[in-house]
Amino acid sequence: MIYIGFGFLMTFLSRYGYTAVGINFFLASIAVQWAILVRGFTKYEVFKGDKYDAVAKELISLDFAAATVLISFGAVLGKTTPLQLLVMTLIEIVVAQINQLICTRFFSASDIGESMYIHAFGAYFGLAVSRVLYDKRVKDATKAKPVYHSDHFSMIGTIFLWLYWPSFNGGAASDDEQQRAYINTYLSLAACTVVTFALCAIYDENGKFKMEYIQNSTLAGGVAVGTTANMPLHPFGALIMGSVAAIISVTGYRFGSAFLADKLRIHDTCGVHNLHGMPALLAAIAGAVLAAMGSTEKWGQSYHQIFPHTAPISEGGKGWTNIQQGGYQMAALALTLGIAIFTGIITGFMMKLPIFDQDQIKDADDMFEDSVFWVLHEEEHLPMKHGGEQNGDKHKEMELRQRTTVGEHGIHL
Amino acid sequence: MIYIGFGFLMTFLSRYGYTAVGINFFLASIAVQWAILVRGFTKYEVFKGDKYDAVAKELISLDFAAATVLISFGAVLGKTTPLQLLVMTLIEIVVAQINQLICTRFFSASDIGESMYIHAFGAYFGLAVSRVLYDKRVKDATKAKPVYHSDHFSMIGTIFLWLYWPSFNGGAASDDEQQRAYINTYLSLAACTVVTFALCAIYDENGKFKMEYIQNSTLAGGVAVGTTANMPLHPFGALIMGSVAAIISVTGYRFGSAFLADKLRIHDTCGVHNLHGMPALLAAIAGAVLAAMGSTEKWGQSYHQIFPHTAPISEGGKGWTNIQQGGYQMAALALTLGIAIFTGIITGFMMKLPIFDQDQIKDADDMFEDSVFWVLHEEEHLPMKHGGEQNGDKHKEMELRQRTTVGEHGIHL
Amino acid sequence: MIYIGFGFLMTFLSRYGYTAVGINFFLASIAVQWAILVRGFTKYEVFKGDKYDAVAKELISLDFAAATVLISFGAVLGKTTPLQLLVMTLIEIVVAQINQLICTRFFSASDIGESMYIHAFGAYFGLAVSRVLYDKRVKDATKAKPVYHSDHFSMIGTIFLWLYWPSFNGGAASDDEQQRAYINTYLSLAACTVVTFALCAIYDENGKFKMEYIQNSTLAGGVAVGTTANMPLHPFGALIMGSVAAIISVTGYRFGSAFLADKLRIHDTCGVHNLHGMPALLAAIAGAVLAAMGSTEKWGQSYHQIFPHTAPISEGGKGWTNIQQGGYQMAALALTLGIAIFTGIITGFMMKLPIFDQDQIKDADDMFEDSVFWVLHEEEHLPMKHGGEQNGDKHKEMELRQRTTVGEHGIHL
Repeated sequence: MIYIGFGFLMTFLSRYGYTAVGINFFLASIAVQWAILVRGFTKYEVFKGDKYDAVAKELISLDFAAATVLISFGAVLGKTTPLQLLVMTLIEIVVAQINQLICTRFFSASDIGESMYIHAFGAYFGLAVSRVLYDKRVKDATKAKPVYHSDHFSMIGTIFLWLYWPSFNGGAASDDEQQRAYINTYLSLAACTVVTFALCAIYDENGKFKMEYIQNSTLAGGVAVGTTANMPLHPFGALIMGSVAAIISVTGYRFGSAFLADKLRIHDTCGVHNLHGMPALLAAIAGAVLAAMGSTEKWGQSYHQIFPHTAPISEGGKGWTNIQQGGYQMAALALTLGIAIFTGIITGFMMKLPIFDQDQIKDADDMFEDSVFWVLHEEEHLPMKHGGEQNGDKHKEMELRQRTTVGEHGIHL
Repeated sequence: MIYIGFGFLMTFLSRYGYTAVGINFFLASIAVQWAILVRGFTKYEVFKGDKYDAVAKELISLDFAAATVLISFGAVLGKTTPLQLLVMTLIEIVVAQINQLICTRFFSASDIGESMYIHAFGAYFGLAVSRVLYDKRVKDATKAKPVYHSDHFSMIGTIFLWLYWPSFNGGAASDDEQQRAYINTYLSLAACTVVTFALCAIYDENGKFKMEYIQNSTLAGGVAVGTTANMPLHPFGALIMGSVAAIISVTGYRFGSAFLADKLRIHDTCGVHNLHGMPALLAAIAGAVLAAMGSTEKWGQSYHQIFPHTAPISEGGKGWTNIQQGGYQMAALALTLGIAIFTGIITGFMMKLPIFDQDQIKDADDMFEDSVFWVLHEEEHLPMKHGGEQNGDKHKEMELRQRTTVGEHGIHL
Repeated sequence: MIYIGFGFLMTFLSRYGYTAVGINFFLASIAVQWAILVRGFTKYEVFKGDKYDAVAKELISLDFAAATVLISFGAVLGKTTPLQLLVMTLIEIVVAQINQLICTRFFSASDIGESMYIHAFGAYFGLAVSRVLYDKRVKDATKAKPVYHSDHFSMIGTIFLWLYWPSFNGGAASDDEQQRAYINTYLSLAACTVVTFALCAIYDENGKFKMEYIQNSTLAGGVAVGTTANMPLHPFGALIMGSVAAIISVTGYRFGSAFLADKLRIHDTCGVHNLHGMPALLAAIAGAVLAAMGSTEKWGQSYHQIFPHTAPISEGGKGWTNIQQGGYQMAALALTLGIAIFTGIITGFMMKLPIFDQDQIKDADDMFEDSVFWVLHEEEHLPMKHGGEQNGDKHKEMELRQRTTVGEHGIHL
């Protein structure tokens, strides 16, 4: 299941054309192979006869690792070269894996849908890179806008991600926790979608919807329950989380992105701060609060299963109190943000080194422009024609222009 | 599995652009949450530790409930506002659930793929609404036509629905019945597809195919076995059902839709009568005939499993004869049609109330038009360009027009 | 799972529009039904109460049978009529099934992902047909090129196939072999993708990527491990196979296709030789080498499981040596190529018979042209507009042309 969600994380960005889809595909393939090395060949015990379960979970982990990079990619899309992105991928995979290792091993922080380790890390790492690479010419770039048809492609990606998000949040869980993760995520997404549409109409002066918000903010509900999906959030709690995520995300698109770009000089192409960053903070904080408020009295055995270190030492835990667990959840968030921003800045400066930045993007016209990296067909600005007239029409148009110019000269004479 | 089929039920309509995909997304999210309330929170026993099976089936039921509304949406697409559709969704979910409850509880009518409760109900409810909302200006609306690229999106939806239809019809069944449902649906769809292509060529004077028929009628085979898919239809029977469905559906598109629009003043944007309505009638009648003709001698234990009320009273049934069961199947169809049309008419009048109809669609040019409800980009009528010339070209074109006009004046002088 | 891969094998070709998607859909439906007849109704024991496993595998076999035809379709796309393709489908299904029966029954050749029986057979059959149908006017055909948006559709198909290829190669396997098939295919695809991007940049003089190569060659890694996916290839071996496949495939697109077209007069529309043909040869040879080099000492019980005829006669095998098994693998490849090319040539001549070739494709302008077989809308060469100006604009453009012409005359006067 996760393969689909993973694949369309790429397609979702397709409004910027070949580069978005193609380079995503390239980076994901690199990321997965690099993640195998980073996570160690030793895990592939299947070649010695292990069960499938182990393998499926490992493949999910590889995909999750790739997802982190693709989120960061969203922040710098259109402003970087493939070589720079390759550098970013190789560094980010390593750092993100180390961060996750520390948070899970030492803080025992629970994050079933990896809202902290993937969404918060990927978003803030990407934003830090984007800050370092900031180029004021981006204000003159006129190609960052979608066109009518490209928004349809993007919507296909949105719907796919929406449909697979329950699997994404519940994929690593099992039994009751998986049930909860599916249902909580589903309800949160549904509430988020409705609130996103409503807010869209409220923010627009004519009460119209805006495709950019719909495409992105409807997914914020999935991120927002990423940490708590397997906890007993109850349907009402899931609906609240989704609604709050929609408010944060749409407001971010409406006001936050311009603020980031103008005041903080952080240009966020796909709005990853609104879709991944802020909803992931919400998710992490909600996780910490639930951990601190939960107990075996309220949650039954689930509490020890979700937070194994809260179990008594006699049962293999460490006897942490619920407040301690909540504190460690917050510590995991703080560490994730710290590592993401710090290493993101360093990575940004590395990407600016002349050896990696070969000045392929010369001016604002080269930003968000496929032809810098792709061989495009001359004819492509003509939509496909019907009948046997494709070339005929084209020639006519050429002729038309020439004639017109002649005509104009005629008049000036 | 059902999530995909459900998702692309929305995309399937995408030839009308943002509104089709976006508002479908919105309505589906509303419908699912509303259906949870309607079906009662009590079913969500998973939070108290139930098994997954129960939950998965419940989620399928929610999706089925949403599907009913989306079918009705197809009949009024392009002629209604989001607010009107919201009213329709809230009413239809309640009425459809009540109808289904009566038919299953009192008539014990078997309808594994819910051809009656979803397809027939959704189609005739939508047509009744469309009749009440009929606006003769729709004849002047010129935007209901697809363009070359939008038909590709629609075809993606068709193929997805086609592929998932066996899961749709078999999702609620189990064991042998599920096997049968998968295979019968698959065979019916395959036969339907072939006959649709053949009929397309026959109906066209030049023997050419027509995309609109292919996109829709190829799916009629799935609807047509929706009631009987889990019954021992035999491969030959499934092929026949699919072929008949194709004949009905293509003929409906070719002749029926114009008749409905001109004579009965029912304008059916997506042709839901041809794809859902008539094939669902076929399915329901076939179900009744099979029930009346079947017996434990012919079908073995399957007969009592599919129609539990035909089992002897000693075994927990009600001792119905096969003729009785067939009669109750027909009664379920009649009740479904009656409730759908009656409540559809009432809903249509409610949607015309000034409070819901805020006159956003002022004339025929506002029908089937995204810009009434969506913020669109000015540049969008220009296809994406290659190289650094996107804006350059646009300006040139503007210039061209101005010059040309000047040129023309020059000549008139 | 296989339904999706199967469906998008069709969409993958969609850059040639309605015909590619629509006729694929038609041929696949015909092929599946015809394959049922060819494989015999007797297999459908489910109607008598068989288990699901048997049925699922049989449905996969039907889809595999259809895939063979769709690969051949790729070679002749745009140069054939639906009637000719129907003839090709009916013949190819029968011949391919007979070939597979001989190879599996008499040679006991292992081919888990059917790289030989599907990919090699389909590709060389299609190329043989294309050779017989060769029409030198294809050089003047200018419509075989993609446009910007159509390449996006094609990329959706590519990513879907990529994601489902592990299921495709592992679908017919079970237990450990299935694990291996999933992982080997996944790694091979990932390596193939990276090498494809790198080679793309190397082959282009400006270091740019080319969409055609990315869309196709990234999948060659899946074909290349189709025979060996369930064998203990080890991660490193899978990465090597994928990389070699990418080199073969991209080189084929860059140089091979022109050579085939110019020197051998084989025009290969979709480059099936590069995506399916050559990588399948690589897969088959790798399978033979692995069979010859393997042994129970190295592979454990897997060796006898994968090659049952190498088991001792006492255990139900035939006591073949590893060298014998390798020889039979090569024999299966040779037979497959021989039958594919021979019957492909015969089929090509049959397709040229006047009864099937009704001269619908009159000249180069009718090649790769949807309007020959489809009813298209007059307006379709206009991209969808915003606001209420769609028709207005169109009229303006018409007017513009008329005025311009007048203007030109004015000047000549």
